[in-house]
Amino acid sequence: ISRITDADEAADKGEYRHYMQKEIFEQPKVIGNTLQGRIGKTAVLEEAFGTEAKAIFDRTRAVQIVACGTSYHAGLVAKYWLEEWAGIACSIEVASEYRYRRFVVSPDTLFVTISQSGETADTLAALRLAKESGYIAGLTICNVPNSSLVRESDLALMTNAGPEIGVASTKAFTTQLTALQLLTIVLGRRHDLTADREQELIEALHQMPKLCEMVLELDKTIEKVSEAFADKHHALFLGRGVQYPVAMEGALKLKEISYIHAESYPAGELKHGPLALVDSDMPVVVVAPSNQLLEKLKSNLEEVQARGGELFVFADKDAGFSSDDNTTVINIPHVPDSLAPLIYTLPLQLLSYHVAILKGTDVDQPRNLAKSVTVE
Amino acid sequence: ISRITDADEAADKGEYRHYMQKEIFEQPKVIGNTLQGRIGKTAVLEEAFGTEAKAIFDRTRAVQIVACGTSYHAGLVAKYWLEEWAGIACSIEVASEYRYRRFVVSPDTLFVTISQSGETADTLAALRLAKESGYIAGLTICNVPNSSLVRESDLALMTNAGPEIGVASTKAFTTQLTALQLLTIVLGRRHDLTADREQELIEALHQMPKLCEMVLELDKTIEKVSEAFADKHHALFLGRGVQYPVAMEGALKLKEISYIHAESYPAGELKHGPLALVDSDMPVVVVAPSNQLLEKLKSNLEEVQARGGELFVFADKDAGFSSDDNTTVINIPHVPDSLAPLIYTLPLQLLSYHVAILKGTDVDQPRNLAKSVTVE
Repeated sequence: ISRITDADEAADKGEYRHYMQKEIFEQPKVIGNTLQGRIGKTAVLEEAFGTEAKAIFDRTRAVQIVACGTSYHAGLVAKYWLEEWAGIACSIEVASEYRYRRFVVSPDTLFVTISQSGETADTLAALRLAKESGYIAGLTICNVPNSSLVRESDLALMTNAGPEIGVASTKAFTTQLTALQLLTIVLGRRHDLTADREQELIEALHQMPKLCEMVLELDKTIEKVSEAFADKHHALFLGRGVQYPVAMEGALKLKEISYIHAESYPAGELKHGPLALVDSDMPVVVVAPSNQLLEKLKSNLEEVQARGGELFVFADKDAGFSSDDNTTVINIPHVPDSLAPLIYTLPLQLLSYHVAILKGTDVDQPRNLAKSVTVE
Repeated sequence: ISRITDADEAADKGEYRHYMQKEIFEQPKVIGNTLQGRIGKTAVLEEAFGTEAKAIFDRTRAVQIVACGTSYHAGLVAKYWLEEWAGIACSIEVASEYRYRRFVVSPDTLFVTISQSGETADTLAALRLAKESGYIAGLTICNVPNSSLVRESDLALMTNAGPEIGVASTKAFTTQLTALQLLTIVLGRRHDLTADREQELIEALHQMPKLCEMVLELDKTIEKVSEAFADKHHALFLGRGVQYPVAMEGALKLKEISYIHAESYPAGELKHGPLALVDSDMPVVVVAPSNQLLEKLKSNLEEVQARGGELFVFADKDAGFSSDDNTTVINIPHVPDSLAPLIYTLPLQLLSYHVAILKGTDVDQPRNLAKSVTVE
């Protein structure tokens, strides 16, 4: 990253106070950029993946994803999509673990890396190792053209998010999810994804920029909610299914820029330990779109309430949650299931942003962290 | 679990103050019980797995593990072993996630559940689902004969740990690891595990009860170390490779019984976020056996030290760590690599036990938790 002078900074941030804030609000636009030229009215345009892509996708029967940090969370969402929608087996691992152990490569497996910078040291080392390990090919989901990961991969799907300056990744994450959804569709149409289902997914994707804008209108509401976190040192983030990685990413944002010890759990694991931590000092943040896991999630939350935990529920407006003494419900517009992981990420980004402002931390340059982790 | 009267309690705890303490110190003996009749001088006795086992193991080319809580951590260790030693692909997932999503079953996959009680609701539901999903067979690693998981599985390997009363699982975990190592060997000998390597592993297993006793002699040392945690509200547990799940289990123990918000990370992921949390209020606990990841781990720890974090390193006595102002090194006897995950678990159990005593919590019955999670 080239050094930015104060004068440049002011110019680049435009009307915004921080790069992170600007990048959060750019998401409707840059998600549009990720989709641009890659989807038609009812289908993904496969040509956009490059000339070699068709032959590689035809052979792919399984996917191995390797990434770090926020990109790893994007990959976790994709695992749910690939198995659920496409019927394709998917494994995922953090790069610093994957590269240092002996792993087993299943036949006909595509190796997928995810990185904003394309220079993440562990992810790049994992790709180099993968090339000698019998994978069909390497595909990278990346934001920086001509980066090492792009140059060294057989296929690259650029996220087109534009430069991301804030250390805590926001628009890179949601454009990665968008790109991974396109990948799921092109692989899925060779397996269990029907043309009808593809059309449904594409129609939803076309709505995404507008839905993102609607959700970002919650900014003032969330700023108000953030006050409850300003004096807290802990937080628990809960989700189930594809929303579990969204909860992980929400917790990571709060950690990174507000230095609150936020941890995430799949809600069903609460009873196996972390419930012991729940008391009035431990706010519990929940992502609760209206899906088939809603009733299970509600029963998990009743346990939290019974133990005096304060709940903050980001819930589909039709999900039947209501605020009371110990529960704050933030109503999210109803969105198609397929978009929920992207949409629910946005209010969690806003929450961490506003909490950091209240805490007075350096939002764009949090302590101890660098933007691109180019060392091991 | 049948209700225990005060009189029974006193009798059952013998010389110990708590069941958890008693169960920690029983480990040399009960690990011996897990091995009893299952290993000879140089090889695992396959007959011990039951008459159907041979045919099932002959067909197994991949393993899917499903479990919750502590048992999930045991499964994570087994994933490293199965891929590294046996060359068998292994996936693992928490039961409450696995059972509620569409998953893809690879050909010739053995479905393995792990549970102390054999009644864990989500794990049992996952097994029932798996039976209709095309797996070769279901094998359970379990501590309670005639439990639902044992009755409904095709194969069961009992851990023989005896009744575990303390809510925070200790001896169940290490006997699960022992059983999973036996499973890795019998599957591995059909794949990449040579007879020489098996003999090495078996010779190490024969030493395990004695090595456990040696490590438990650190009790007084660890009691002293625990004082540093008595006024803390946070802790970070770090490991790499097969020691990462050991760090996860160490953090869970501290959470469960001392209510300290302890979180674990693979050490290589520190730079991707959690390093922002590190300051003098966040002790960092590290498990550092002497293996090929040691130098990488040391460089991760230098980052922690540079940020003012206080380190507690459980390290092989020959690993070259030394205590200083901000670093407390607890020397662990040198043990074979294959036993390290078991051996390093013990001092972490003792640490959480002594911290809980200092905090004055109810060690055997921590708040909000039940021994067997028989509801969803």
